[in-house]
Amino acid sequence: MTINFRLPGPTPLPPAVLAAMQREMIPHRGPAFRDLFREILRLAKLVHRTDGDVLIWPGTGSAGWEAAIVNLLSPGDAVLAAVCGNFGDRFAQVGTAFGLDVRRLDVPWGEAITPEALDRALDAHPDVSAVFLTHNETSTGVTNPLPELARSARQHGALVIVDAVSSAGALPLETDAWGLDFVLSGSQKAWMCPPGLMIAAVGARGWEAHARSRFPRFFWDLSAAKRSADQGMTPTTPPLTLLYAYRAALDLIVGEGLEAVWGRHHALGEQTREGVRELGLDLFADPAYASDTVTAFAPPTGVTASALLEVLRRDHGVEAQGGQGHLVDRIVRFGHMGWAHQDDLRDALVALKRASATVSAPPQAGAIPS
Amino acid sequence: MTINFRLPGPTPLPPAVLAAMQREMIPHRGPAFRDLFREILRLAKLVHRTDGDVLIWPGTGSAGWEAAIVNLLSPGDAVLAAVCGNFGDRFAQVGTAFGLDVRRLDVPWGEAITPEALDRALDAHPDVSAVFLTHNETSTGVTNPLPELARSARQHGALVIVDAVSSAGALPLETDAWGLDFVLSGSQKAWMCPPGLMIAAVGARGWEAHARSRFPRFFWDLSAAKRSADQGMTPTTPPLTLLYAYRAALDLIVGEGLEAVWGRHHALGEQTREGVRELGLDLFADPAYASDTVTAFAPPTGVTASALLEVLRRDHGVEAQGGQGHLVDRIVRFGHMGWAHQDDLRDALVALKRASATVSAPPQAGAIPS
Repeated sequence: MTINFRLPGPTPLPPAVLAAMQREMIPHRGPAFRDLFREILRLAKLVHRTDGDVLIWPGTGSAGWEAAIVNLLSPGDAVLAAVCGNFGDRFAQVGTAFGLDVRRLDVPWGEAITPEALDRALDAHPDVSAVFLTHNETSTGVTNPLPELARSARQHGALVIVDAVSSAGALPLETDAWGLDFVLSGSQKAWMCPPGLMIAAVGARGWEAHARSRFPRFFWDLSAAKRSADQGMTPTTPPLTLLYAYRAALDLIVGEGLEAVWGRHHALGEQTREGVRELGLDLFADPAYASDTVTAFAPPTGVTASALLEVLRRDHGVEAQGGQGHLVDRIVRFGHMGWAHQDDLRDALVALKRASATVSAPPQAGAIPS
Repeated sequence: MTINFRLPGPTPLPPAVLAAMQREMIPHRGPAFRDLFREILRLAKLVHRTDGDVLIWPGTGSAGWEAAIVNLLSPGDAVLAAVCGNFGDRFAQVGTAFGLDVRRLDVPWGEAITPEALDRALDAHPDVSAVFLTHNETSTGVTNPLPELARSARQHGALVIVDAVSSAGALPLETDAWGLDFVLSGSQKAWMCPPGLMIAAVGARGWEAHARSRFPRFFWDLSAAKRSADQGMTPTTPPLTLLYAYRAALDLIVGEGLEAVWGRHHALGEQTREGVRELGLDLFADPAYASDTVTAFAPPTGVTASALLEVLRRDHGVEAQGGQGHLVDRIVRFGHMGWAHQDDLRDALVALKRASATVSAPPQAGAIPS
């Protein structure tokens, strides 16, 4: 049975990305590496829509939260964390762990952060240095209205720090035009690579904040990464194989065309939502802010998410995911980002229909329990 | 021309490791991952010779310095950094960056830290909480007498924090028997994997120190990593492809037999040193502490390291490395760790002989400069 890998991360690797990782090691201070790394940074800037800097570390998206905090802020700084799901909540918790004074704007999971709510929260907390935003909340399948939120934050004089883990490379993301100061992501979502890279775009205001920041730091230090990147290098040994993969994935994205990639994801989002609705299942996210990279929905009445997931996996080879936190057994999530195409989602929806019937069917009279 | 990859890291990937990375993504919270990760940890403990914990992050050896500091120490703690080369120096600098009170024991590069010198330094600094030791100093090709140094540190009541980046998996390293409290390494040296994993062994005293440590932390937090590892998981998305590679490499090491691996490296060290001496070139490291994973030597009289390296690369396909810091043009380094065998070093030594002759030859009368 072919696996239909519908986790909202890690996501399937395209054949070209898998093949790229068959390359042997190269000297990481030599010209071949410099050429590779400079081309990666050039392409990554295109996809982030920035003329600023993109920097890369071994890490994950979560490491990006830490890197944003220790590079742009100082102990005791007040920040506003806009939380609409599990990942926004974790970002806020990392702020607290590092001694920030974290104020929270919480909305019910499944809803988006609206610019009006953010305006009100920032009016109530005029002293915050930064706003933590989640572009696409992977745990609920909500895409926040990032351009409007960023505008609100900037109007209030706050830095715009964006978790773009499940949006970068799939959804419109205009680092420069929207005024984003720090945009972090991980390689294993729409970037179509294995987990293991943390990628960050840093704008001019991000660098100004960095110059003022007083956290001790070393591995995530932006200045060291930039000094090296400007010479086509990294401060410590670069994760070569994952960079081979990222180069191949960036080539795929730029080759398809960034607007075409966004369009494909929007079509996948529409297809998935329509398919779920047709089965009579309830979509979890506010439809006005439904994500084009991950769709969450409730299992059939009386059925747990884990029961449905088990049948999807066992009978249909569909690997999907349940909810997080209090949603653990209440929602199922289908990822449709990165190396995802119409056929994959069509098959997943057919499987969902059959699996829903299987788990919903009352036990037959006289049937022998297996 | 086949490349003879003699960098002291990254090192060549065995075919089995390259092949292992052709595997697609798997659910990182599912049973297949738990089986993989538990087996990796079991094998890694064998190779670290510990019944304690081994934990793994996306990262590099340098990240291990930071992880050791933020997990086992507190701001203002006095530590003794034993420095005999560039990597020991950088470890000390990371301590300073994190606000530790770093006392230094420096010996000339090329020499080892002796137990007597460490005893004296610790007698002079009885207040230090920890000693930073470099097991094998990659920048000079020196293996420090770790068991004796660890004993000295413990007798003085100091934690033993060991950079084993270019020793773990190649040189005898007895985490438990030698009383090492934190042993850090990166995947790209004797572990025969691509760069991108940071691996740490933590002993009982390390955990006690961790319980007292007051640094803010998140990504490198030992407790979070252990809580997850005990369930066969990682706190954030694991770098699956690199873990596939590490599993394959650990199988190779355990399959060959750890003592056989140590023996192979010792033979490679002897072969390399003997070959260099036979060419009349000066070995850089104190012969009593010569490393079996990397050999540093001076280029022929009147020749710079970079000139020799260029001919080795251009005419012979040998990728070696120069020195670091003040040694940049004064030494050449051959790595012989991980996926390295007698034939590789024999070929490299033949190339060294020829390249030395090329760079040492006086320009011929009437020759037209190219």
